[in-house]
Amino acid sequence: MNVVDVADPADPRLDDFRDLNSVDRRPDLPTGKGLVIAEGVLVVQRMLASRFTPRAMMGTDRRLAELAADLDGVDAPYYRVSAEVMADVVGFHLNRGVLASASRPGELTLTQVLAGARTIAVLEGVNDHENLGSIFRNAAGLDVDAVVFGAGCADPLYRRAVRVSMGHALLVPYAWASDWPCDLYLLRDNGFRLLAMTPDPAARTVADAMTAVAHERVAILVGAEGPGLTKRAMAASDLRLRIPMSRGTDSLNVATAAALAFYERARLNP
Amino acid sequence: MNVVDVADPADPRLDDFRDLNSVDRRPDLPTGKGLVIAEGVLVVQRMLASRFTPRAMMGTDRRLAELAADLDGVDAPYYRVSAEVMADVVGFHLNRGVLASASRPGELTLTQVLAGARTIAVLEGVNDHENLGSIFRNAAGLDVDAVVFGAGCADPLYRRAVRVSMGHALLVPYAWASDWPCDLYLLRDNGFRLLAMTPDPAARTVADAMTAVAHERVAILVGAEGPGLTKRAMAASDLRLRIPMSRGTDSLNVATAAALAFYERARLNP
Repeated sequence: MNVVDVADPADPRLDDFRDLNSVDRRPDLPTGKGLVIAEGVLVVQRMLASRFTPRAMMGTDRRLAELAADLDGVDAPYYRVSAEVMADVVGFHLNRGVLASASRPGELTLTQVLAGARTIAVLEGVNDHENLGSIFRNAAGLDVDAVVFGAGCADPLYRRAVRVSMGHALLVPYAWASDWPCDLYLLRDNGFRLLAMTPDPAARTVADAMTAVAHERVAILVGAEGPGLTKRAMAASDLRLRIPMSRGTDSLNVATAAALAFYERARLNP
Repeated sequence: MNVVDVADPADPRLDDFRDLNSVDRRPDLPTGKGLVIAEGVLVVQRMLASRFTPRAMMGTDRRLAELAADLDGVDAPYYRVSAEVMADVVGFHLNRGVLASASRPGELTLTQVLAGARTIAVLEGVNDHENLGSIFRNAAGLDVDAVVFGAGCADPLYRRAVRVSMGHALLVPYAWASDWPCDLYLLRDNGFRLLAMTPDPAARTVADAMTAVAHERVAILVGAEGPGLTKRAMAASDLRLRIPMSRGTDSLNVATAAALAFYERARLNP
């Protein structure tokens, strides 16, 4: 445990956490997308358990006490600051009381995340960080092994996505498709049945479809709220499934719809 | 259809829509909680179909064209403005292009919302407007007939809640319990089985519990994210149910957990 007291908000050692609301805080870094930031005790704990190695932490003495056991053997410095210094550095009052920063390691490959996976989520056009974060949280809780990104998805390591995911964006393995939608055929070659979510009333119900594929590897394809999956992704899929909806309502939130499909998959594969 | 062109952003006829980000915009009104505001074509259409009668609308010419059929026979004025005037009045750029305002009618009573209902959601301590909005959207899509508020819930008519609900906060009947948690016994007297959601691993699975009560009236009790239901609400309930979770994860978002329970209820009561 490497605790360093810092009293000056202008101290350059706190730069990882400066002006957090700015979209790309560290364009000087190789990826130009900024560092990965974990907020709050629970998410910092999940970062410590993940492949994202903290560079630095900044937090109050109270949060340090809560994290003490987790920080055993951790080299990265914990900059201990007052709540006032913290607010001054990040640019707003942050009531979670502790932050950790990590560089972006290399992305995992599709082959890496498929190894051993029984159920995966495949996202296309999900460009809202909050929905993306929710999907990771739902994947973690409802037994989805990995997430694959097709075209048009937002960055799952963006601060808001990591926060809404409760840190599961750091733990659930994910990979970017390099050739979309052709990589869907790669999934099929790996034995995955491709299940496309759609509001189309002609599709099979999610319960019916999940029963039909209960003993197979499954990829659950989810498109953007509104437009849904593209025609090409839909055409590549094996089965189309829908959530039975009441009162002529149009659709559920994309992360909620995904959660219902994940739930059905897990229910039929206990 | 009552279209009135307005070019001056200071025109007092636009006051219902002024400075929308202020928390209580119209403390002069009887409830002191501000007007009910619908944003966007879809939500304005839902307001027009609801018990909330628009006082006024403000929007662009393009949105007027999209709403023309819905405005047939509607007395409230549609103040037609440019996008610039609109942004000036509301205080930020609002890309949904149309707003409607409504006064708050009297609240429905518990007896009113229970009449004819087979499945209701009962919320306790859900004080986040976004979660509240999501719960209404999920209730509408997944065949929940009404929502009952116990202690500690936020205002479902707050602008953000209405927006996230996609307008379903205006359509799904709801009532406030006047005597909490004693009103739970009133629900039971009306033949409702009280099902309490909990992360407790000792509870029955949601599938198991919903199967057991498939032919009865059901009230699904959901507590705040984090603390969950209070001991008193838990003690008053008939059955405790949980969503099977993977990887030792703690919990799902409260609106997502509710959606899974609503889904199971609907699946077993098609």
